[in-house]
Amino acid sequence: MTSRCWVPVPEDSPFTLHNLPYGVFAPDGGAPRVGVAIGEHVLDLARALDDDTFARPALNAFLAQGRDRWRDVRAKITALLTDASGRDTVEPALHRADRVRMLMPFEPADYVDFYASEHHAANIGRMLRPGQEPLTPQWKHLPIGYHGRSGTLVVSGTDVVRPWGQTRPADGAEPPFGPSRRLDIEAEVGFVVGTPSPRGTRVGVDDFADHVFGVCLVNDWSARDLQAWEYVPLGPFLAKSFATSVSPWIVPLDALGAARTAPPERTEPLRPYLRDGEDWGLDLALEVRLNGQVVSRPPFSAMYWTPAQMLAHMTVNGASLRTGDFYASGTVSGPGPRERGCLMEITWNGRDPVTLPDGSTRTFLEDGDEVAITATAPGPDGTRIGFGEVRGRVVAQPLRTED
Amino acid sequence: MTSRCWVPVPEDSPFTLHNLPYGVFAPDGGAPRVGVAIGEHVLDLARALDDDTFARPALNAFLAQGRDRWRDVRAKITALLTDASGRDTVEPALHRADRVRMLMPFEPADYVDFYASEHHAANIGRMLRPGQEPLTPQWKHLPIGYHGRSGTLVVSGTDVVRPWGQTRPADGAEPPFGPSRRLDIEAEVGFVVGTPSPRGTRVGVDDFADHVFGVCLVNDWSARDLQAWEYVPLGPFLAKSFATSVSPWIVPLDALGAARTAPPERTEPLRPYLRDGEDWGLDLALEVRLNGQVVSRPPFSAMYWTPAQMLAHMTVNGASLRTGDFYASGTVSGPGPRERGCLMEITWNGRDPVTLPDGSTRTFLEDGDEVAITATAPGPDGTRIGFGEVRGRVVAQPLRTED
Repeated sequence: MTSRCWVPVPEDSPFTLHNLPYGVFAPDGGAPRVGVAIGEHVLDLARALDDDTFARPALNAFLAQGRDRWRDVRAKITALLTDASGRDTVEPALHRADRVRMLMPFEPADYVDFYASEHHAANIGRMLRPGQEPLTPQWKHLPIGYHGRSGTLVVSGTDVVRPWGQTRPADGAEPPFGPSRRLDIEAEVGFVVGTPSPRGTRVGVDDFADHVFGVCLVNDWSARDLQAWEYVPLGPFLAKSFATSVSPWIVPLDALGAARTAPPERTEPLRPYLRDGEDWGLDLALEVRLNGQVVSRPPFSAMYWTPAQMLAHMTVNGASLRTGDFYASGTVSGPGPRERGCLMEITWNGRDPVTLPDGSTRTFLEDGDEVAITATAPGPDGTRIGFGEVRGRVVAQPLRTED
Repeated sequence: MTSRCWVPVPEDSPFTLHNLPYGVFAPDGGAPRVGVAIGEHVLDLARALDDDTFARPALNAFLAQGRDRWRDVRAKITALLTDASGRDTVEPALHRADRVRMLMPFEPADYVDFYASEHHAANIGRMLRPGQEPLTPQWKHLPIGYHGRSGTLVVSGTDVVRPWGQTRPADGAEPPFGPSRRLDIEAEVGFVVGTPSPRGTRVGVDDFADHVFGVCLVNDWSARDLQAWEYVPLGPFLAKSFATSVSPWIVPLDALGAARTAPPERTEPLRPYLRDGEDWGLDLALEVRLNGQVVSRPPFSAMYWTPAQMLAHMTVNGASLRTGDFYASGTVSGPGPRERGCLMEITWNGRDPVTLPDGSTRTFLEDGDEVAITATAPGPDGTRIGFGEVRGRVVAQPLRTED
């Protein structure tokens, strides 16, 4: 793409002409609507394209229209932003990004969380089951997943209230009850489903791009002490269901062509439904900041399972897809010690506190801590595109008079 | 209540004047709308009450209006059905139940499934962990739950497509892949949330009736062989997500006053947030039929955890509630051998086939099998009310050319 964008795009902006991510914004005093980020601006699509699909508080209507329409709208936006002759009519549809409020970009249907990083799963296994095989027997045969709470998906910037709950008691004692003392983050990548599929059918691993519209960042806040007490045998529940934060900009798959990469070599043969003909590994470079200081740089390219394999697995039993279904990768961790996507791994379950550049130390999150996760990916011609950020601050629950 | 209902109600009808359950029906050639069951008829509420809240394809708008409104509408319907002087104006709003089609009664938000029967959990423990304590250590301290897939909640009468998936391999072999060979039922009771609650707050155990509108029956179809391979450490996923059937009529809590009962004695002290001041055990008598033949009569009164405790636990971490949230009890099993709510218990994991009255035998479900679950409860003055049924037939997936 050699045509120039007439909207100024600063050199370090994540939102270049090659990106064009979608979100929902509220202009000052105006109703929420769909916009596309370009440089330091947000383009009001309903106005720029004269299309009511975008005059709504969620992307869902557009998501439901399918891949041909997604591509058509992307081409139209690219044309608007490169054809300087139309500038006078498009400019009134541009809002300065720092003057609008970003909202939850889609109305979530079901939310599924996977566990697709071998490094993360193996580290957790080593901590919780020392002396045993780090991975459970099925780990390399299928992408493990479970359903989360879609009602507590919140957009970046929303405060996260520290959850209360029961934790494992000492032998013979009653389970303690109170605020979680081991509140953690999980740096993840999320996938937004546009095109639905009927119950009783499967979505093939190579049909990924027909169903998934785009990608965003996720912080799957986790209370490790609640989880340790509750999770056998039916999995995490209250340890996760209090809040899951998502970034406001959904980067379309069509912007990620240069980011596609082969996943790591498979060390176990796969069932045919998981054998992918196309590479849907993604070379996304994540960065996790705690109170503004980098604590980790997890590489998404190290994920064992691709999002295309996650989708194929999620539907192989005949489960239907709805527009707005959302699934996340699970914690993104690479092989290196500074590539781990959660504090549980970084501090080895609290044993080795991490020292931040400002000299403060942490095992798990304290009230007032702010976590921000960002990511960039290769764009065309050596450029990079970015995902913006998912950010959240931990706050205490209001005072209780009783437990 | 001594006033008489002018709509004829057969003596064995589950839908007496004391019940008045809500559902969504489509009259022949008409748009879906909210109705109330009375005897062999369905009352079109939008027409009978001249109220647009009910001219919709889901109960959600009414559910969101809260408890005072629920009671007000119930009183109005009772008045309409007992005041014979208004008969001429109400009769045109009555449809014969056998001439309408029942639809999914509410648009589900999140779906949570609990594991609240001690008899069920202990039986599963004895089968899967022989020689160990049947219950996991936290079982009597909190109601264990996990999130399910709300997108595959289906109304009674919907065929259930047998799921395919991976199962546990013999040592060193590849995991087999194919249709589940251990497809099971779980007879459960479900609870529909009306009044929402904000994130970061809790719903107290005694606020149950302010938030939960009503009760229905659930069949949580389960593929035991898929579950055994996938569920450690994050819980059931594909084993459950292909379909969960619900009965079409939601019995309001206000109809269940005579069914309320104390739960079984607690053998462990409870944290204050789970200590209930009101009895929300429910004396519901379930009946499970396989191809028309009774295989089990599970008593809901034997459940260790009440629905009020489930709700308090689900929100104690600050998780919000949305209108349309739905949660189910988990398999209802009583202490007796013919009181078990799933085939895994009835046949002791397939070891002891059950012989049906017609001489056929089953371990797990075969294609073509139809399962129906019904329930009744005490009404006022020695009467009984009923829940109708949740029914579903197992069908094979269409032929595959590859796995």
